[in-house]
Amino acid sequence: MANITKKVSWSSRGDESGAAGEETPLLNGSEQSRPLRQQDSARGRPKEIPHNEKLLSLKFESLDYDNIENQLFLEEERRMSFMAFRCLEISRWVICGLIGFLTGLIACFIDIAVEQLAGLKYKLIKENIVKFTEAGGLSISLLLWVALNSFCVMWGSIIVAFIEPIAAGSGIPQIKCFLNGVKVPRVVRLKTLVVKVVGVIFSVVGGLAVGKEGPMIHSGAVLAAGVSQGRSTSLKKDFKIFEYFRRDTEKRDFVSAGAAAGVSAAFGAPVGGVLFSLEEGASFWNQMLTWRIFFASMISTFTLNFFLSIYHNKPGELSNPGLINFGRFESEAMEYNLYEIPLFIAMGAIGGGLGAFFNFLNYWLTIFRIRYVHRPCLQVMEAMLVAAVTATVAFIMIYFSTDCQPLGPDHTEEYPLQLFCADGEYNSMATTFFNTPERSVRSLFHNPTGTYNSLTLGLFTLTYFFLACWTYGLAVSAGVFIPSLLIGAAWGRLCGILLASTTSTASMWADPGKYALIGAAAQLGGIVRMTLSLTVIMVEATGNVTYGLPIMLVLMTAKIVGDYFQEGLYDLHIKLGSVPFLHWEAPATSHWLTAREVMSSPVTCLNRIEKVGTIVDTLSNTSTNHNGFPVVVQVSGDDEPAKLCGLILRSQLIVLLKHKVFVELARSRLTQRKLQLKDFRDAYPRFPPIQSIHVSQDERECMMDLTEFMNPTPYTVPQDTSLPRVFKLFRALGLRHLVVVDDDNRVVGLVTRKDLARYHVGKHGLEELHLAQT
Amino acid sequence: MANITKKVSWSSRGDESGAAGEETPLLNGSEQSRPLRQQDSARGRPKEIPHNEKLLSLKFESLDYDNIENQLFLEEERRMSFMAFRCLEISRWVICGLIGFLTGLIACFIDIAVEQLAGLKYKLIKENIVKFTEAGGLSISLLLWVALNSFCVMWGSIIVAFIEPIAAGSGIPQIKCFLNGVKVPRVVRLKTLVVKVVGVIFSVVGGLAVGKEGPMIHSGAVLAAGVSQGRSTSLKKDFKIFEYFRRDTEKRDFVSAGAAAGVSAAFGAPVGGVLFSLEEGASFWNQMLTWRIFFASMISTFTLNFFLSIYHNKPGELSNPGLINFGRFESEAMEYNLYEIPLFIAMGAIGGGLGAFFNFLNYWLTIFRIRYVHRPCLQVMEAMLVAAVTATVAFIMIYFSTDCQPLGPDHTEEYPLQLFCADGEYNSMATTFFNTPERSVRSLFHNPTGTYNSLTLGLFTLTYFFLACWTYGLAVSAGVFIPSLLIGAAWGRLCGILLASTTSTASMWADPGKYALIGAAAQLGGIVRMTLSLTVIMVEATGNVTYGLPIMLVLMTAKIVGDYFQEGLYDLHIKLGSVPFLHWEAPATSHWLTAREVMSSPVTCLNRIEKVGTIVDTLSNTSTNHNGFPVVVQVSGDDEPAKLCGLILRSQLIVLLKHKVFVELARSRLTQRKLQLKDFRDAYPRFPPIQSIHVSQDERECMMDLTEFMNPTPYTVPQDTSLPRVFKLFRALGLRHLVVVDDDNRVVGLVTRKDLARYHVGKHGLEELHLAQT
Repeated sequence: MANITKKVSWSSRGDESGAAGEETPLLNGSEQSRPLRQQDSARGRPKEIPHNEKLLSLKFESLDYDNIENQLFLEEERRMSFMAFRCLEISRWVICGLIGFLTGLIACFIDIAVEQLAGLKYKLIKENIVKFTEAGGLSISLLLWVALNSFCVMWGSIIVAFIEPIAAGSGIPQIKCFLNGVKVPRVVRLKTLVVKVVGVIFSVVGGLAVGKEGPMIHSGAVLAAGVSQGRSTSLKKDFKIFEYFRRDTEKRDFVSAGAAAGVSAAFGAPVGGVLFSLEEGASFWNQMLTWRIFFASMISTFTLNFFLSIYHNKPGELSNPGLINFGRFESEAMEYNLYEIPLFIAMGAIGGGLGAFFNFLNYWLTIFRIRYVHRPCLQVMEAMLVAAVTATVAFIMIYFSTDCQPLGPDHTEEYPLQLFCADGEYNSMATTFFNTPERSVRSLFHNPTGTYNSLTLGLFTLTYFFLACWTYGLAVSAGVFIPSLLIGAAWGRLCGILLASTTSTASMWADPGKYALIGAAAQLGGIVRMTLSLTVIMVEATGNVTYGLPIMLVLMTAKIVGDYFQEGLYDLHIKLGSVPFLHWEAPATSHWLTAREVMSSPVTCLNRIEKVGTIVDTLSNTSTNHNGFPVVVQVSGDDEPAKLCGLILRSQLIVLLKHKVFVELARSRLTQRKLQLKDFRDAYPRFPPIQSIHVSQDERECMMDLTEFMNPTPYTVPQDTSLPRVFKLFRALGLRHLVVVDDDNRVVGLVTRKDLARYHVGKHGLEELHLAQT
Repeated sequence: MANITKKVSWSSRGDESGAAGEETPLLNGSEQSRPLRQQDSARGRPKEIPHNEKLLSLKFESLDYDNIENQLFLEEERRMSFMAFRCLEISRWVICGLIGFLTGLIACFIDIAVEQLAGLKYKLIKENIVKFTEAGGLSISLLLWVALNSFCVMWGSIIVAFIEPIAAGSGIPQIKCFLNGVKVPRVVRLKTLVVKVVGVIFSVVGGLAVGKEGPMIHSGAVLAAGVSQGRSTSLKKDFKIFEYFRRDTEKRDFVSAGAAAGVSAAFGAPVGGVLFSLEEGASFWNQMLTWRIFFASMISTFTLNFFLSIYHNKPGELSNPGLINFGRFESEAMEYNLYEIPLFIAMGAIGGGLGAFFNFLNYWLTIFRIRYVHRPCLQVMEAMLVAAVTATVAFIMIYFSTDCQPLGPDHTEEYPLQLFCADGEYNSMATTFFNTPERSVRSLFHNPTGTYNSLTLGLFTLTYFFLACWTYGLAVSAGVFIPSLLIGAAWGRLCGILLASTTSTASMWADPGKYALIGAAAQLGGIVRMTLSLTVIMVEATGNVTYGLPIMLVLMTAKIVGDYFQEGLYDLHIKLGSVPFLHWEAPATSHWLTAREVMSSPVTCLNRIEKVGTIVDTLSNTSTNHNGFPVVVQVSGDDEPAKLCGLILRSQLIVLLKHKVFVELARSRLTQRKLQLKDFRDAYPRFPPIQSIHVSQDERECMMDLTEFMNPTPYTVPQDTSLPRVFKLFRALGLRHLVVVDDDNRVVGLVTRKDLARYHVGKHGLEELHLAQT
């Protein structure tokens, strides 16, 4: 079981020991209070559950979006002048500018590297094919192609599988989770970034059915997390700047800016980037934060644009706002008419259906991979196999294609392949494969009517659909945006051609490129199911606002139809990763659940002045692994249970233990330096595990005063609060722990992310997921 | 004093009696707990305060964005099946579609009406001028012009001043406040909508320096509030649909969709509309809500586009996405270069400075108006005066202008005026005045180089600046967007011309239209200070994404420079209205304030089973006028103060009293119908005042059981919670009352909107506003 969960692109290999802390209290203890549980905890009989879609892993921790307003923090804030706050604000802008700039640079680097290497590869193969077309023995060309592709993909896969498995895939599900408030291990580390960037270059050059756009979002997020902290733990380099931002609240804000900058660089869509960040992540809307996110996005697309213009020897001509450029949709023929809208909606439905089918296939493939392809060397071999098959299929299709097109004087194809066509003509099928996918999309959108025949498009759609589906989930760094667009553009263009041929008034449906665009939107929407941000991204990428309405209608149709069958691809993978992901609202029919039923209890509480031994034992208890502890105070001379007076986190206790902040020591060593917020910041974010802290037997008898360090005003709710109300509070404030108290302010339970994420609406009404230690 | 506050476009004439309820408890009682107060309550000595910028009116109530989860509500929710929730969701979409459609229709109506009437007017005057140019006696033309303008403006002003004063101005500050959670009286009523729409037509036709875009936002919001309730209280028509949505939470969500639809129709900017709604209003981001808002925006711009295309006899050709259309910026010459960016930023700074000056003048003008021009007939006379002056100034400038331009064969001017120009030429100054402002903006953006000379532009900027400043704040329904754009475009074009003439390489600065665009953005940004949404609106209106970065930089510069001198125009008017407006975050240096200092105390509490007489007396107490009452329960046989067990609103108590839900009556009349949620919804939103409910002396002795109706789980905070933490909770959840409790869960105070809005950062650090009953 453990194996199964671990390998779904969320693998947390080698990290469990340190980050062992868990918020959810003892599983057994909380059993009685969960009326919905139909089965016992998954721990008892994991074999009965075929796969882990119905599980919720306890391994994932939450981010602390809520500030810990303890005395230290308040003292610091109160010491700060108005000017100091101004300076902080300015640094935030500077950081966002930096994030945008660096994200743009990385996008630029990826773009140039891919173009150069892919150009080299295509040239090599083209020359080889041309040589062997006349001499016979094209099988040698095939072998060369297969070998080159497999070689590239092998390296791309090796670094991912062996060095950093979290860098696999597009990274969008991981960033979604991070922005949702889940601490996905190692997702924003420098090593991940390097593997991601190098990996995506290899996979795109290796000719896989992938895009380089998704990974940009992840890259931007990693950059943001790194830059905003002013240090790199991996490189052991601390610049001693931006220390104020070393906490989850600030980091998460910057990461959302980074993700937006990534989208912006990938698609030249700064507004789309902002909306992506907000749609996927932000718990609540903050004006200043959004402006900064927008600023980062703008800088990012501008940087990319500027450096690419230099690379293309047209400095200052800012015409490459993103990695993918849909080209300008301007011609009169591209204007749509009212009676075309039903057609567009029908195409949206097709896209939704196809997308659901894609997700369905990929889902079973992922289950298969979880079971049988979880060793790194197997993963590398699978990736190489896919690369080889992709090349072979492409070759066969080009070989048997008879779609010859005249090569005009102003042709846009960079590597036109004559093959068996007459002189002055080129093989149309070859251009779709013999190109980076980005360029193929653009050709499908803009090439004049008649560039492709229906058979070419149909065959291409079919093969590319299965190839892309097979490719997503491989241990390579790659995105699914571009393959989706390509599939959609192909069948969309096919629709356009068929429409034009069936109606007599051909001029009405003049441009199949318009249908290619709609098809691309439909297919992408059917697979990823984003609506608002995707509409804006598509509109910005086309650079034409008038397409807003049809694209929105198409995306909404695709989402409705797709959701009927299957969830979106990213959500599916998040589910398979058993991540405690919180949606926007509590399930609709959950009003009859109250905090009393949802919460975990009993709760391990600490006294305000607690024995060190007790604290160490509590933290060392591996069967509970709590992360937050309500602090209580005993009303003197009273038999009643203690009252809540604060909340303290495992990470804080660890720092306190490490610095031996004991009451007795403070008395004896008067000169001892008072613990400062800086000490907590220095330890952030990789707090040492409790096992690494040595506490002597004498010290165990000391006392620790938590008053100064605990959060004295944790948010609380009464026991009768309904689940939607608890959910709203939790989600709106980005909480990690919510204390449930009774009428006398005594602790009766604790609500954490997992307690809320357990409930979801299934086919038979409200369902409950199983919690598992995997 | 009362007079002063009342008349600042927020006038609540004739409404105080009913909506008298106020959340803030007794002013005197809470005095001790407010250490910051430098002066006594404003009530004592209002004369010392020169104007009401430093006041916070107690007259404004809050909206209840938090659901009242009492037993009735929970029972209803629990009875509802999953399908019922689905249906509700579908109705929400249908309503948003309707909102978009109707907003589009209204925009279309305004556009056509203005075009027809203005066309008639221009034709009349032009013919008159042509007649008198040769015959002499142009003063008769002037008189005609003045008379026509004053006549139109008179009617526009009369309906505003005498029928519905809240319809004055653009309505954007009012909608900002509504979305912020302030219940501005009568702002979303049908009468307001009618006056707004008719008024804006009169003011634009009357030739004032105003636009018809701002009022669209207000109109959309009113429509949304009306449609979503499925009834009109004014028309006494209840369609018995959408009853579920009859509460503040849902209504406010729909109003944000309506505002977005308004922006979308005004500027053809659906994404900008969504961002406007979010930037100005939404407390927290909800994905589904945002999609619906986007849907409404899209439908709105599409409807307008579609009907305008029919009106222009080109059905199906969707080229009019908004009321104002910047035209297409496509030519090569419009592309900007890197070295132009510093110039753009400089222009942003100019715009910020000019905007601040504009706001400064308008601020003093508004103070003047509050003091001396508060009678409706005076207001009408002022509006007529402005109309006459505008016409006269325009006439004089045209008369003395010597800027003659050749009239090309494909000229775009609809009413070219020859005046004293040679045959085949027209007076260039006349075109800027002899046009709807929207058309003038477009001409400034797109007319080829040389269409205007510098003197024309300079003079035009100067006069229009002062005219627009004088006009904003008149008792007419009109917006400030277009005049700002026009002023900015004029001086921006002037900058472009000057740049081209000073540099030798004229081709570098080829197109002054580009500078007109940047100037327009700078001026508008300097006046209204919106950043994110305005950038997107401008980008969508130009239809060219590449202008995103310069526009953003310009708007940000304008904001920074402008904020240094003076607040934005809308914020200024909100401040002058003494509205308790909550900003995004608590003031930076407020960490040393806690809930104990901020809250109002003592609080009037009710017992769970309370005597009817006590309730009636509490509600009738005009000196307190509370709106929310914590419900407490006495622990039996205990001398301690009672513990908090719920919260009940004035409006709920009123309904209970009206239906005589008394314990004794329930016992005697067993068949009595149980009070349902429907009864509360029927009374919403105009709950009767307590004075209108007759309670006999016998009934006063009865008891009322509040258990079923109170919200049993109000949000609470401990006394030591810091102000930023209280603020965050309050703002994120859109609360109206936040109960402050001690360690034993006893009520010690209540935090309301006004308690939080009182603190703001002034020039000398944290300042506190005065609360006033005005």
